[in-house]
Amino acid sequence: RINGDRLWDTLMDMAKIGPGIAGGNNRQTLTDADAEGRSLFKTWCDKAGMTVGVDKMGTMFATRAGTDPNALPVYVGSHLDTQPTGGKYDGVLGVLAALEVVRTMNDLGIKTKHPIVVTNWANEEGARFAPAMLASGVFAGMHTLEYAYGRKDPDGKTYGDELKRIGWLGDEEVGARKMHAYFEYHIEQGPILEAENKTIGVVTHCQGLWWLEFTLTGKEAHTGSTPMAMRVNAGLAMSRIVEMVQSVAMENQPGAVGGVGQVFFSPNSRNVLPGKVVFTVDIRTPDKAKLDRMRARIEAEAKELCDGLGVGCSVEAIGHFEPVTFDPKLVTSVRNAAEKLGYSHMNIISGAGHDACWAAKVAPATMVMCPCVGGLSHNEAEEISKEWAAAGADVLFHAVVETAEI
Amino acid sequence: RINGDRLWDTLMDMAKIGPGIAGGNNRQTLTDADAEGRSLFKTWCDKAGMTVGVDKMGTMFATRAGTDPNALPVYVGSHLDTQPTGGKYDGVLGVLAALEVVRTMNDLGIKTKHPIVVTNWANEEGARFAPAMLASGVFAGMHTLEYAYGRKDPDGKTYGDELKRIGWLGDEEVGARKMHAYFEYHIEQGPILEAENKTIGVVTHCQGLWWLEFTLTGKEAHTGSTPMAMRVNAGLAMSRIVEMVQSVAMENQPGAVGGVGQVFFSPNSRNVLPGKVVFTVDIRTPDKAKLDRMRARIEAEAKELCDGLGVGCSVEAIGHFEPVTFDPKLVTSVRNAAEKLGYSHMNIISGAGHDACWAAKVAPATMVMCPCVGGLSHNEAEEISKEWAAAGADVLFHAVVETAEI
Ligand SMILES: NC(=O)NCCC(=O)O
Ligand SMILES: NC(=O)NCCC(=O)O
Repeated sequence: RINGDRLWDTLMDMAKIGPGIAGGNNRQTLTDADAEGRSLFKTWCDKAGMTVGVDKMGTMFATRAGTDPNALPVYVGSHLDTQPTGGKYDGVLGVLAALEVVRTMNDLGIKTKHPIVVTNWANEEGARFAPAMLASGVFAGMHTLEYAYGRKDPDGKTYGDELKRIGWLGDEEVGARKMHAYFEYHIEQGPILEAENKTIGVVTHCQGLWWLEFTLTGKEAHTGSTPMAMRVNAGLAMSRIVEMVQSVAMENQPGAVGGVGQVFFSPNSRNVLPGKVVFTVDIRTPDKAKLDRMRARIEAEAKELCDGLGVGCSVEAIGHFEPVTFDPKLVTSVRNAAEKLGYSHMNIISGAGHDACWAAKVAPATMVMCPCVGGLSHNEAEEISKEWAAAGADVLFHAVVETAEI
Repeated sequence: RINGDRLWDTLMDMAKIGPGIAGGNNRQTLTDADAEGRSLFKTWCDKAGMTVGVDKMGTMFATRAGTDPNALPVYVGSHLDTQPTGGKYDGVLGVLAALEVVRTMNDLGIKTKHPIVVTNWANEEGARFAPAMLASGVFAGMHTLEYAYGRKDPDGKTYGDELKRIGWLGDEEVGARKMHAYFEYHIEQGPILEAENKTIGVVTHCQGLWWLEFTLTGKEAHTGSTPMAMRVNAGLAMSRIVEMVQSVAMENQPGAVGGVGQVFFSPNSRNVLPGKVVFTVDIRTPDKAKLDRMRARIEAEAKELCDGLGVGCSVEAIGHFEPVTFDPKLVTSVRNAAEKLGYSHMNIISGAGHDACWAAKVAPATMVMCPCVGGLSHNEAEEISKEWAAAGADVLFHAVVETAEI
């Protein structure tokens, strides 16, 4: 068994970096806080006897050597970046539990044939730079490095410039590493495990996603002196689209979600009807055909709604992944580990996207999940118990050691 | 007649300060650009032989002496501040036409019994610091100086600090000046004069307004892993309120408007359902009873909509003025001037709020309007013709001289 107290202390130490405003964290990608978190993590990896490499996207790879020089490594990781008002566990648990797996192997003197590489993927959240899972996406060949470097935050700063600025631009070619297997441990971020009273989620699939960025063009005009009949109100059009996305998601129950998290009104002045509204629709379902049907319907109905108001409507898909089926052999190794250790478990489909979804494109991959209180995530109040954290890390430990072969 | 070319050149010179991004202006209240515009205006006033005083709100008063030391001045003005993406004429025309009135009196050697005070009211737009017409509101005793100093821009900077910072904090007590009369010349900002093919609007009334700032509290949660049934979506609630405000305005036709210009989602991340949405509803009508009915209905229906989604809803009235009836004698002097000069004219109700609305609380007041192309204002593309600008200034000149008595 891993050391649950040590894992928890390590989590709490990381949570001191980039504190939020309500007990959580704001350690967004390529900020100074991100740089600080990376340095602390590197110190821990060094102390655990690992060698840290960094690629051109800023992803960190900490290697514990294996006994067979020809064996490909088993990768185990997640991400240390957070949402602007994020929790202490989303992503962080997966990276620090991977570190705990190595620490436990060191304690027990376990040697494996395959090296173990503890991985901290850059820009998983996609909050500062869309899309999410950007570095693992480049790693898996889904995006070019140029595309990733050009992604802009709301202030217009680019990923490439910010990566250099914080001093974490590495020299490894992105995606050059080959993997024997990829494991990722993550909090569920949803309510199912807690509701079913299970400690371990054996993740069989991940639902697919579209991020549709709408740019609506109305006519900036005075809110007081512009008669109702003369308005070309991009904000009203946006509101109708938010409502329509809600309806489309509800009509596709069960097994689909849809919502809008980000909205920019322009010029965003109380007495000016917005001339421009930019916002992102997020839709997901594990069913590929349904996902694409939802997208097509939302785009068509949005255009119709906008036409009815004389508002211009353009849509850009700025994030996408298809539903993923994880590697059956690795899924079985996770289930067996939970069974052997005596933890209650169930199969689960990941509601959120993860770096494992892109890793699955280039290697056998799977995930382990633990519950989170009230299903709450992307919220500073995100919470898990020390016991849940340790149980998942135990399962990870056993599945990783089995796959890396003693 | 006034000098239309000189007026136009003066307008174009002011438009060089705080240029916008699309041909208009961004000279928001208490910015460096505002300070620069004030300095240029002061230079012009000095050259025209006027004495410039500044009050503790930063309002500028440029006095041309009268012949009777006991006669109260006739005030003529408007505002030089603009929206973030504002036009070159909204407010500016009224201040610079008042300057042109004095320049013409100087040219013609006209002396009046009552002094003339060309006035540049501070923070008319209310874009950076709500509410609109803040300085004239303090002048008329509608707000305290402390309230005004504490108003914050979106970055949290206060009116009081910014006024000091730009160096335009004056020493005059706000509202200490007494007025014989107040005139304001402004572009219509609506489509009526152009549609009716009239050059001059004789402004008889101004419609009333409520600015209702809504703060909706939902639950920040992951857009992917939070089932539809578990969402407490403040953004969906906001969208429903925008649609409801539109309905309330439409059901109160004719003679009412309602809309939303400013929206802040929090944390405003693509994959986080907003935990907080703050936005401002702007409703107006010339009918006081109707205005209050609309407000009551919007607040009640918003609370109901929010209750249905489990979203918290609080409302603060952050801007208000009642419908205004302008002084009949001054209104007549404007109509007579238009008639005498041979300009087509009609009575009109101002759709926008103006400093004249607050001045009317403490003195006989009225306004003159000229058309603007397509009724467009609060838009960088705001446009008027040189002839329209000059016609209104001519009318202003004759009405002011008549009221100030030769
Ligand atoms: N796990 C997680 O929150 N990832 C961010 C990408 C997403 O929105 O699913
Ligand atoms: N004239 C003008 O645009 N004033 C700003 C206050 C308002 O919104 O009416």
